[in-house]
Amino acid sequence: MALRWENGSLVLLDQTKLPEEEVYLVCRDHRQVAAAIRRLAVRGAPAIGVAAAFGVVLGAQEILTRGGDLGAELPAVFQELRSTRPTAVNLFWALDRMARVWQDQSGKEPTAAVSALEAEASRLYREDAESNRRLGEFGAALFADGMNILTICNAGALATVAYGTALAVVRMAVAQGKKIAVTACETRPLLQGARLTTWELIREEIPVTLITDSMAGFVMQRGMIQAVITGADRVAANGDVVNKIGTYTLAVLAREHGLPFYVAAPFSTVDLTMAEGSLIPIEERAEDEVACWRGRRLAPAGVQVLNPAFDLTPARFVTALITDRGIVRNGEWEKLQQLA
Amino acid sequence: MALRWENGSLVLLDQTKLPEEEVYLVCRDHRQVAAAIRRLAVRGAPAIGVAAAFGVVLGAQEILTRGGDLGAELPAVFQELRSTRPTAVNLFWALDRMARVWQDQSGKEPTAAVSALEAEASRLYREDAESNRRLGEFGAALFADGMNILTICNAGALATVAYGTALAVVRMAVAQGKKIAVTACETRPLLQGARLTTWELIREEIPVTLITDSMAGFVMQRGMIQAVITGADRVAANGDVVNKIGTYTLAVLAREHGLPFYVAAPFSTVDLTMAEGSLIPIEERAEDEVACWRGRRLAPAGVQVLNPAFDLTPARFVTALITDRGIVRNGEWEKLQQLA
Repeated sequence: MALRWENGSLVLLDQTKLPEEEVYLVCRDHRQVAAAIRRLAVRGAPAIGVAAAFGVVLGAQEILTRGGDLGAELPAVFQELRSTRPTAVNLFWALDRMARVWQDQSGKEPTAAVSALEAEASRLYREDAESNRRLGEFGAALFADGMNILTICNAGALATVAYGTALAVVRMAVAQGKKIAVTACETRPLLQGARLTTWELIREEIPVTLITDSMAGFVMQRGMIQAVITGADRVAANGDVVNKIGTYTLAVLAREHGLPFYVAAPFSTVDLTMAEGSLIPIEERAEDEVACWRGRRLAPAGVQVLNPAFDLTPARFVTALITDRGIVRNGEWEKLQQLA
Repeated sequence: MALRWENGSLVLLDQTKLPEEEVYLVCRDHRQVAAAIRRLAVRGAPAIGVAAAFGVVLGAQEILTRGGDLGAELPAVFQELRSTRPTAVNLFWALDRMARVWQDQSGKEPTAAVSALEAEASRLYREDAESNRRLGEFGAALFADGMNILTICNAGALATVAYGTALAVVRMAVAQGKKIAVTACETRPLLQGARLTTWELIREEIPVTLITDSMAGFVMQRGMIQAVITGADRVAANGDVVNKIGTYTLAVLAREHGLPFYVAAPFSTVDLTMAEGSLIPIEERAEDEVACWRGRRLAPAGVQVLNPAFDLTPARFVTALITDRGIVRNGEWEKLQQLA
């Protein structure tokens, strides 16, 4: 389980250590949560939203314990958590939900306010699991028995409270008795596909084959893949999708090979304030993520490196968006407004 | 320099150690040469052809020194070298040239035969440098001042005797006074782009930016790239190209973005006995190349892995093939027969 709330602490599986070690981090204040989000100990759009919500609870608890002024100090807690990562909208969506609860508590007793914040974070936690289960059920209808499904990064249980997004669809199709195999792109530079998706699927005995990102064209050309499914970090009002770097390349390849390209995300990943995907900020991460691995250099010192963590897949490449409120097919993106 | 013939030994720069260490291997028999080709200490289609040719010389020298029977024993030397890698045709082309020289020597004095073999290997060596210089000059006309050129793997001086193939074109364009920048795909699994292309270009002060293979779509979508150029391991009679895994994906992306996709290779890489690319054998390499790095696992033990070392780019994606005998443009592939 990627994260759980236990005895007033947030317990995170440190995903930077997988698959070599299974280490749990116990976060007792919001700074630890913010640091864990920044360094990707917890990652995946839905999971970072829920983790940040519990970060607010931890910040509020701390202020309360030392007799601080919640009204004066809580905004800085929100600010620190908001500043961790810029792209996945679930972070801001979850923090906005927490902020509304806090506003409703203004003038009330501080202990009650913290309880209300904890209740909201727990609600976000339960809702995430429930949303993913539901989107998985909607999406499973799209996968037929015997399909081999290509995915990138980890849009699995490790990226969420439970089930995953893209992998929830796989899980639900498998639960329906369909034989589904997964081909996992390793997902450079941080190898979430190689390290996390394979780890998660092997534990559930869902057949998985690992490829480098550069092999996606090869396996499609050979007819080894029947559909592509990815998660999303943010979906714009026009259906444009921002997701892990490499997703756009898969979308272009899928169209070239006549394969459906599905995106699975809870509705909390849809950002209707963004008219189109080009407005969504793309996080640039440290050069060493590309140029080094586990402290060893892969490239000469001083080489110039690009490291955008996400890319933009224009809506025209997306066959359908699978959400917990239903499936939105290409060309009916205005339905996103109705579902909101 | 990737390889040189020195005092009757073949000296190879061990490319598996770059960029961390610059180590030279001195091969004194053909088994060492075969092992170096298999484990990619020397790699790149033109370089392995020339290395194998000197491997024959070393094998012949050894037989001669211990008073063995050249006629009885040399075929096994050829066989061992032929079996090292299946895809790049330059290996077979160079060994065929050596075999013809050997046949011409049948019945002659063994010392003279070995000298003739050494002369032919040296000729192959000089011809490779000369071919690459010439193809670079042909190709340089295609690159305009200010272009940023995307490439994959290392089709540079390290893949050849000198100049490189794709990078010979870059070098010659730079020598003409054009400002050319290179974007190097890291080239998983063995990172020839990150380790070798950057190393080589930094030493020549040609601007280079490293990206993961999964970022190729991103940089093209952003308008950062003006052309793609790759080397080739084998070109079929119909213009189909087999090259490093990931090349096909770049070709699809280039077409999507309206960018020219060039392939640069000496004519020795063209195999007119292959009517089309699907007939060319694709080497499958060890799973650990994908699942491990420098002895550390990147993926859970037991995960199933694909590791094709090459892929097929159909001729329809190739804007032009740049050879040492001239440029062959898309749609005029029958010119390959005339140039032969």
